This record gives sequence, C-alpha cells and structure tokens, in this order.
Amino acid sequence: MDTNLIREELVSALAWRYATKRFDSERKISEPDWNVLENALRMSPSSFGLQPWRFIVVKNAAVRNSLREHAWNQPQLVEASHLVVLAARTSVDTTYVDHYLQLVATERAIPVETLAPYRGMIVQFVENLTNVGQIEAWTTRQTYIALGSLLTAAALLRIDTCPLEGIDPKQFDAILDLPRQGYSTKVACALGYRSADDAAAGNKKVRYQRDAVFSVVE
Amino acid sequence: MDTNLIREELVSALAWRYATKRFDSERKISEPDWNVLENALRMSPSSFGLQPWRFIVVKNAAVRNSLREHAWNQPQLVEASHLVVLAARTSVDTTYVDHYLQLVATERAIPVETLAPYRGMIVQFVENLTNVGQIEAWTTRQTYIALGSLLTAAALLRIDTCPLEGIDPKQFDAILDLPRQGYSTKVACALGYRSADDAAAGNKKVRYQRDAVFSVVE
Repeated sequence: MDTNLIREELVSALAWRYATKRFDSERKISEPDWNVLENALRMSPSSFGLQPWRFIVVKNAAVRNSLREHAWNQPQLVEASHLVVLAARTSVDTTYVDHYLQLVATERAIPVETLAPYRGMIVQFVENLTNVGQIEAWTTRQTYIALGSLLTAAALLRIDTCPLEGIDPKQFDAILDLPRQGYSTKVACALGYRSADDAAAGNKKVRYQRDAVFSVVE
Repeated sequence: MDTNLIREELVSALAWRYATKRFDSERKISEPDWNVLENALRMSPSSFGLQPWRFIVVKNAAVRNSLREHAWNQPQLVEASHLVVLAARTSVDTTYVDHYLQLVATERAIPVETLAPYRGMIVQFVENLTNVGQIEAWTTRQTYIALGSLLTAAALLRIDTCPLEGIDPKQFDAILDLPRQGYSTKVACALGYRSADDAAAGNKKVRYQRDAVFSVVE
C-alpha cells in the first residue's frame, strides 16, 4: 500500500479513537474484523517471544453482568460488542520455557538442543525476576504491549475501544476461574461501536504538546 | 480507506515484523515516517489520559555507545536509525493531576471546576496506588501501551523494531539524567531497517495457536 496513505490512516485513526463510554449495543464487530483483532493480540511481541498471556473473550451476557459489578458498574462491559480480559501468567518456570522452546524447535524444524544457549539466557532472566518477586509485574507488562497493539489495530478498523483498568482483578479471576490455570486478570478492553448518545465522543482529545513528552539527546 | 485493505495490511505487517537484531546503519527513517511514529507514542492511550511518560530520542552517537554498555552490548543500540527510551513518572501527585486537568480545561474551553468530580476520582486512584507502593508499576504499564502502539505503527510503515528490555534502567537513568526530572527508564526501542546480514530475519515467527491463548466464555 502507498506509504502516504498508511501514514494518513495511522494519524487519523489515532486522532479518531477515544475511551468510549457508551457503546451501541445493537452494532456488532464483524467476524472478519474480529479475526484481525484476535490476530493483533496473538501476534503481539513479548519478551523472548514467551507470550505469557491469556485472552478471555466473554460472550456470555450473565458473566458480563457479573463482571460489571466488579468494574464500577461501567456500562461498557455489557453494551460493547466484545469484551476481552487480558490475563498474565502468575509464574514462568522452566517447564513453561521448555514448552515454548519445543514449539520454536518444531516450527523452525530445528533440534531443540540448538536452542540451549537461548534457553540458558531465558531461564536465568525469569529465575532472577522470580527471586525478586517481579515475575508477575513483568508478565503484566507484556500484556500491556498486546493491549497497545489491540487499541491501535482497532482504531485503524474504526472500531471503538475502552481500555478498562477500573476493575477488581481478584473478582474477575474468581468469575473466570483463572488462578487454577495459572493466570491473573490484568486489564480488560471493551470493543465495538460508539453510541450516538456517548457524550464523551464530543470531547476534544487532550495530549501534551510534543516538547512536553519528547526529549531529544542531540 | 477500504476495510479489506486495512485488514490485509494489519495482518501482513504483524506477520512481517520481528525483533530485529542487526540494523542497516546506513538506512535512516525519513522525517515523515518518524513524525507518524512520534505521533503514535504521543497519542497513545493512558489511564485517565494522564500520559505519565517521557520519550527520549537518543541521537548522539557517544550517548548511544554509553547506553549500549548497559544493554548487554547489543548492536541495535548503535546500528538502528533511531533509539527511543520510554520512561515513566516515578510519582503522580495532585500537582501533576491538576497540571493535566488544567490542560484539559484549556483545550476543551471549560472551567476547570467542572472537572472536580473527575479530579476526585483520579486523586483517589493515584493516592491509593501511591500508598500501596504501586504507582510506578502503574505508570510503567502505561508506557507499555505506548510501546505496543509504536511497534504496530512501525510495522505498518514497514519500519523494523527491536523492543529492548535487556537494559540496566538505573544506568540509563543516570546517563539520561532522568530521576531529577521525575522519570525512570522502563524499556527502550530501536527502530530502522533490518540489515541484509540479520540472521534473525529468516527465522519463522513462532506464536501459539489461537486456542492456546484465547478462551471464549460462551
């Protein structure tokens, strides 16, 4: 595609998006669009490629209502076309690392032994983080990369989003039965189409000027 | 733009990208492209819109060499066209919140007093996080949203990236004089164009299958 066109699309999409408060509950994201959004999450970069995350797409209306009770009663949780909960692994052990490296070896058709130096580096890194109690903070940050990818991809498709941090992770975990699977809720995102009634849609987007957020070391 | 085309671009861009190890030091990102990437960072969503971040674009070759010494000597830090350090605020106090809300009021041409309920919510939220020692973990997560936006935007422009977590934040902070300004290094990103010599470019991208990372609550 023409580079000028892509530049323009990126700039206009990011100016267009905002944290949507009221979604049009009648409008649903099409399957082709949703596939692209799932792909944006799944292909998202993560440290060492470990993908220490799980994305829970909550379709069930009763479950969405329950989650809403633990999210300051925000209507987005039930009105949006889609609700996805981004969860992170609560631990990363050598078993998980080996599971991942076996996939790498299979996909690249190489003996897993050739990955031994890489394995050593990863294991040392995650063991250090585990020892200082920072492993979950680190897996959490990876899910936020995925969130950033998702929000940008959605904007390009002119799909509205509302990232949701104002949620009670422990209650979400319980409702979604995540701890038993080794995951914990980190953030959620409602996706769909803004309602004509959303007062927030008319608010001017506010960002600091370039000089307030960028420094250049010449 | 045609939706089909955007979908295709997103899917192909995310398949194309990889963590580039060796950049072509002769190829530079054009100014129009860089402006779009800066815009992706600046327009990135953050909790309450607080933008608790600073992006440091390191052009100086000597400084990039110094940073490289604290980043496992990775060549990306000096070979890539651009190097950006993503830093997060180490605290968020009411002064900062009021500074932000004043900008909101000015931009939206409303009296700042009308934002009092919103202010109360933000102040309560950040004071809670500060009291439990989680404020910096939270500002850090916001910078990772910006990182996700940046990586996706770059891929669409067919600009290569390497997110860099293997860095020593304290040394980066010292070199870039960040703590005095109330910021701390969280992650960096090298951007530019892959070298023809980058062995990593030929590696098949490895991601778990959809069912391994997605759960659907029907």
